[in-house]
Amino acid sequence: MHKKLFIPGPVEVRQQVLEKMATPMIGHRSKEASELQRRISDNLRKLFYTESEILISTSSGSGLMEGAIRSCTLKKAAVFSVGAFGKRWYEIALSNNVPADKFDFPLGQAVDPAKVDEVLATGEYDLITITHNETSTGIMNPIEEIAEVAKKYPNVIFCVDTVSSAGGTKIEVDKLGIDICITSSQKALALPPGLAVCTFSEKARARAEKVQFRGTYLDLLSLYKYIKKKDYQYPSTPSLSHMFALDYELDYILNVEGLENRFNRHIEMATVVREWAERYFEIFPDKRYLSNTLTTIKNTRGISVSELNKELGRRGFQISNGYGDLKEKTFRIAHMADMTVADVKELLLNINEILALE
Amino acid sequence: MHKKLFIPGPVEVRQQVLEKMATPMIGHRSKEASELQRRISDNLRKLFYTESEILISTSSGSGLMEGAIRSCTLKKAAVFSVGAFGKRWYEIALSNNVPADKFDFPLGQAVDPAKVDEVLATGEYDLITITHNETSTGIMNPIEEIAEVAKKYPNVIFCVDTVSSAGGTKIEVDKLGIDICITSSQKALALPPGLAVCTFSEKARARAEKVQFRGTYLDLLSLYKYIKKKDYQYPSTPSLSHMFALDYELDYILNVEGLENRFNRHIEMATVVREWAERYFEIFPDKRYLSNTLTTIKNTRGISVSELNKELGRRGFQISNGYGDLKEKTFRIAHMADMTVADVKELLLNINEILALE
Repeated sequence: MHKKLFIPGPVEVRQQVLEKMATPMIGHRSKEASELQRRISDNLRKLFYTESEILISTSSGSGLMEGAIRSCTLKKAAVFSVGAFGKRWYEIALSNNVPADKFDFPLGQAVDPAKVDEVLATGEYDLITITHNETSTGIMNPIEEIAEVAKKYPNVIFCVDTVSSAGGTKIEVDKLGIDICITSSQKALALPPGLAVCTFSEKARARAEKVQFRGTYLDLLSLYKYIKKKDYQYPSTPSLSHMFALDYELDYILNVEGLENRFNRHIEMATVVREWAERYFEIFPDKRYLSNTLTTIKNTRGISVSELNKELGRRGFQISNGYGDLKEKTFRIAHMADMTVADVKELLLNINEILALE
Repeated sequence: MHKKLFIPGPVEVRQQVLEKMATPMIGHRSKEASELQRRISDNLRKLFYTESEILISTSSGSGLMEGAIRSCTLKKAAVFSVGAFGKRWYEIALSNNVPADKFDFPLGQAVDPAKVDEVLATGEYDLITITHNETSTGIMNPIEEIAEVAKKYPNVIFCVDTVSSAGGTKIEVDKLGIDICITSSQKALALPPGLAVCTFSEKARARAEKVQFRGTYLDLLSLYKYIKKKDYQYPSTPSLSHMFALDYELDYILNVEGLENRFNRHIEMATVVREWAERYFEIFPDKRYLSNTLTTIKNTRGISVSELNKELGRRGFQISNGYGDLKEKTFRIAHMADMTVADVKELLLNINEILALE
């Protein structure tokens, strides 16, 4: 029995999108491939509210995180971490011999923009990384306020992991001055996993030109130069199946649902889950910075989350246990992608039935 | 109109396999994902005739080439190049600050095992790379003879790019002593592009333990350790769609068609194309080392290859022009994956009609 996925990726994918994954192959050096990939880039620019070039990588979002921090750090990177995905940025930097320092905030708390200011004022750093939406805790960082700080330091490359938020919440890349904004296919973009995309500013490009050993497959500058020279074709054979599906879904997002409607639907779904969580449990993270795509709930009733998930499985639903040390102490409900408010309500009704909540 | 692809990847994908790409999503941290990925690894071990562990990367084959040369070179890599994909190994090494030397053979010639011996005898190198099947020229290198040489140097890691041959021709990894044997989904494995796989020997693992900065996403040792710890789950969200399709296709290859039948079918298809090429044109590469999956044909009649391909396109077929400098001087017909001898004959009949060959 298929389980409807309320987990923070892979998300539930609509039948129409799945069918696009089954599109017959075309040559990746064809005019048709160029047109497909150019159209995707044009539409992603609308989704990200940017004039920057778009780079597409057949990899997970982590692949492009590696490409960003390795291609664009010359001096030292400052990693601001509010959980598992901040830690990942830092470990990626170390594994590539990229100098980096990590600044941690307690689990459930957001990045403090004042701390970012303090760190950048030292002049030690020329790149910063922010996890916009931290799926391990359910925090959505105050990206506007952090952006205001970042703008004070024009030599700093501003990298943002929007893997679990882009497509579900408005991220105005150019207005925020983000140089590299990364997301991947299997979250709010509502596709299967396997593709990652990022914006790549002129400033990031200029920086990468100065960095010597950037590797090949994940090197943002190599990707950029290749698509410019070869009319949006990629150096290696990309996942064309994901391209077909992304092309279809971007048209749906922009022209059928509409961006504002999509962002509002995510807020509505989040509101329903938060109200439910407040009524029967407690919300785990700082309420000033709640994620629009995922809610982390404190297990104040001491239920067995894994037992709950098993029973939900029998009914055709799946939610997530807490992440790492937060397992069983919290549980997580993702409300993103092409899911509807009705889907979310149906899930919550089932949880209520199983736990006999009234 | 869909064009049947006789190009060296992406290949034509059967409808049944395409449909598997449309399988609904499952959680990538589920027991189901572990079972799927373990089964794929077990079946790939049969395809590669190996006891080595299998690593799966959501990337193109080039991604794993980068992982191999970066993760496992401690001293210096010797790259033996017979065309575009040999050159790629070398450029990947340089871009990662991995010391490497490239030894070139003329286009259309194979690697000379005596040269490999001479190079390794210097003691300068601790890793070699061979392109088993070079799709830019149609050469299939004498891997058995090269393997005999490699065995004389037990401290050398033996890496082989079998991207365009594995699944179409027998490669007995353990018998040949290959440490890292790489392939990707969109060639003789008959899937859409987007996934790469490799074998990873104990010797390669021990070497990688000694290499300090291996990166993260493409690091073979990180992948290895993670799947061992997490029951064949991967550190980042993998392309589950490709996993579903690969699982289906491996069962087909091993249990429906059978490996020996599959390899024989590839020889039959190659024979038909070679006989046709000899009759109407000439074969480009050294006839002692012809590829079983692709034939490069010398354009002795001075036809316009691009015009031929346009007319073939109108009839629902696509072949490849020559690669790089060999464009219009040669053309290429791929005969790999799930294509049949009848498909190949149909293509050749159409070429004969278009060119009025008798």
